[in-house]
Amino acid sequence: MDIFEESVELHRKLGGKLSLTSKVELKNTHDLSLAYSPGVAGVCEEIAKKPETVHELTLKKNTVAIVTDGSAVLGLGNIGAEASIPVMEGKALLFKEYAGIDAFPICIRSQSTLEIVNLVKNITPVFAGINLEDIAAPRCFEIEKALQDIGIPVFHDDQHGTAIVVLGALFNAAKLKNKPLTEMKVVINGAGAAGSAIMDLLLRMNIDEGPDQAVKEIIICDSKGIISETREDVPGTPAKMSLARRSNRQFQTGSLADAMVDADIFLGVSVADAVTKDMIRSMAKDPVILAMANPIPEIMPEDAKEAGAFIVGTGRSDFQNQVNNVLAFPGIFRGAIDIKAKRITRKMKLAAAYALAEAVENPTPEVIIPSVLDESIAYKVAEKVASVYDPKQDVTEDS
Amino acid sequence: MDIFEESVELHRKLGGKLSLTSKVELKNTHDLSLAYSPGVAGVCEEIAKKPETVHELTLKKNTVAIVTDGSAVLGLGNIGAEASIPVMEGKALLFKEYAGIDAFPICIRSQSTLEIVNLVKNITPVFAGINLEDIAAPRCFEIEKALQDIGIPVFHDDQHGTAIVVLGALFNAAKLKNKPLTEMKVVINGAGAAGSAIMDLLLRMNIDEGPDQAVKEIIICDSKGIISETREDVPGTPAKMSLARRSNRQFQTGSLADAMVDADIFLGVSVADAVTKDMIRSMAKDPVILAMANPIPEIMPEDAKEAGAFIVGTGRSDFQNQVNNVLAFPGIFRGAIDIKAKRITRKMKLAAAYALAEAVENPTPEVIIPSVLDESIAYKVAEKVASVYDPKQDVTEDS
Repeated sequence: MDIFEESVELHRKLGGKLSLTSKVELKNTHDLSLAYSPGVAGVCEEIAKKPETVHELTLKKNTVAIVTDGSAVLGLGNIGAEASIPVMEGKALLFKEYAGIDAFPICIRSQSTLEIVNLVKNITPVFAGINLEDIAAPRCFEIEKALQDIGIPVFHDDQHGTAIVVLGALFNAAKLKNKPLTEMKVVINGAGAAGSAIMDLLLRMNIDEGPDQAVKEIIICDSKGIISETREDVPGTPAKMSLARRSNRQFQTGSLADAMVDADIFLGVSVADAVTKDMIRSMAKDPVILAMANPIPEIMPEDAKEAGAFIVGTGRSDFQNQVNNVLAFPGIFRGAIDIKAKRITRKMKLAAAYALAEAVENPTPEVIIPSVLDESIAYKVAEKVASVYDPKQDVTEDS
Repeated sequence: MDIFEESVELHRKLGGKLSLTSKVELKNTHDLSLAYSPGVAGVCEEIAKKPETVHELTLKKNTVAIVTDGSAVLGLGNIGAEASIPVMEGKALLFKEYAGIDAFPICIRSQSTLEIVNLVKNITPVFAGINLEDIAAPRCFEIEKALQDIGIPVFHDDQHGTAIVVLGALFNAAKLKNKPLTEMKVVINGAGAAGSAIMDLLLRMNIDEGPDQAVKEIIICDSKGIISETREDVPGTPAKMSLARRSNRQFQTGSLADAMVDADIFLGVSVADAVTKDMIRSMAKDPVILAMANPIPEIMPEDAKEAGAFIVGTGRSDFQNQVNNVLAFPGIFRGAIDIKAKRITRKMKLAAAYALAEAVENPTPEVIIPSVLDESIAYKVAEKVASVYDPKQDVTEDS
């Protein structure tokens, strides 16, 4: 029996992984009259009178929706809402385990942006936050953008979760290389949800009010090579054009191999075996490789090291430096919910990245990010995330 | 501190009443790889291949949505989705306590029938059933009707829950009066959700394939008196016209007092103090009074008894014969979910009423319905409900 069959058996035995439990002991009719009729009418009236108390008096205090349309589930693709449920339940377990958050799966039958947006707006009363999950690009971007002003944080984990952990790792990598991150040449391979979110953060890394700190040289590649305004197919694709405009200011063209020459950092959110040893040999001194394709990375760590990589990370638990979203989303939501944030601002994402970097007391090439087994991380992230939230940023800062 | 303040304090202390818990022990990375990535991919693929397994492998096996728009909450009226949450959480506790069902509140911001219908259709993947709750008439009728073919049971508790318990009580009342229910004259006061659902059941009470058993003489009243096709305002109101057409075949007109003359049964789903002692004195011998207005009944039990009532019931826990939905909905859903019913058919509702009547071993005027504290009831109801389900009825039988 392989791990997949074993998992099916476990799920069949349990009949799903999530259960709802009562926080109230119902021992007698008095208990019932407080938790339900008639006493509950007093709670309803309190909320009707003071709407903000819904955050204190109901499950909204600690509950997040995990919203998907099942269109991009794991590596399985568009398998639909029903087949996505086991992943969403698993995600809910992680929310609970790492950050004590009650998360409930909302798996939507429709794959229309408009319907999903309306649905999420309409279910917000019960939730303190919305975690978008496994929704295909570009719909995921459209949905997240359309939901920024609904009054509770909406966070597309596949984008920002990955970006935050990558940035945290790069802060420590820069420290070890003793070179400012802003001065490094970064190549991102993969122009989907995660790649574009990584680029966004690298272009504005300061958390204070000072001038923007940006990585000056970023090249982003897709399966056709370097994305550039001069590449024939790019101007016709709005998402790619937007990436091209903000990166590659030398208007370089060519393949991923061309992009890699003299790069300090390679960030792979693409496919297995996309990177060769020769590409790594062409990079600048002491290169940093985060090869996060799952389950098989862009290049195996031992090969990268052999070709001269200074630091290597992957998405896998069986190698060093595991870049895993679970380091980010539980703490991000914990922090945002605790302060009743209306949005997750850019500064909150950066704060999470800084918290992850700082959580590694003595970074070494083998350890630039905390372990996913360290259950204190979410609370460290939460504290830092909450500390930088400024309600005034909600409307003005992020696009 | 009164019960309302005490309830607010309890809710504040707990921060809501519902919590999500994991059925899986996550002790090590193997546990995690079974409950989540990579093992979970096997479960997703199993469901993608065999869609019906979603009922066995996910929380859908045991999860119901409690759906409201907050438009008719308790006696508080249209207080909105947020302020309705404490009631829906309380309802979820009852689902768990009485029938072991995981119920989650979906409190919808929109009060548009179309939007609510679409939303419910779109969230069905995760749920085995939908309990509609505290939605104002006539929207509640429209929504329930529009959702009958979505593949999982949809049940508006305020209508059918009450109707089922009333019918169960009347089965035993008829036994005590030693007169067939079909031969009795029944007056229903209140033409809203509950009143019309009660009438529906009284008009077709047979669970077997025999000829329809109907109460021959039903008069239904609203605040203006007897509803009759000849009453000026009725033809212009479709819902009232539909009630008039199916009741009052003598075309009687007049007040509630006129309707009550020679009636055997009075069913009140209306307002406090609607019934006088004189009205009860005008009824047939040994009248049955179910005065279910909340919290103050149409007539207080002692007054009804004094005026000659043989059997009296109310909605209150501090009097005998408490007519309470909690006797119906947990068992109805338990039964329907266990057999993966696609709908709750008329026969299932009748079966629940029969189960309630039978659960009282030796009915007396003081005990015609089981106690809400008897936790075996839901399972008795469930068994009977499940036994009469016929998938073929789904499309053909009910309107």
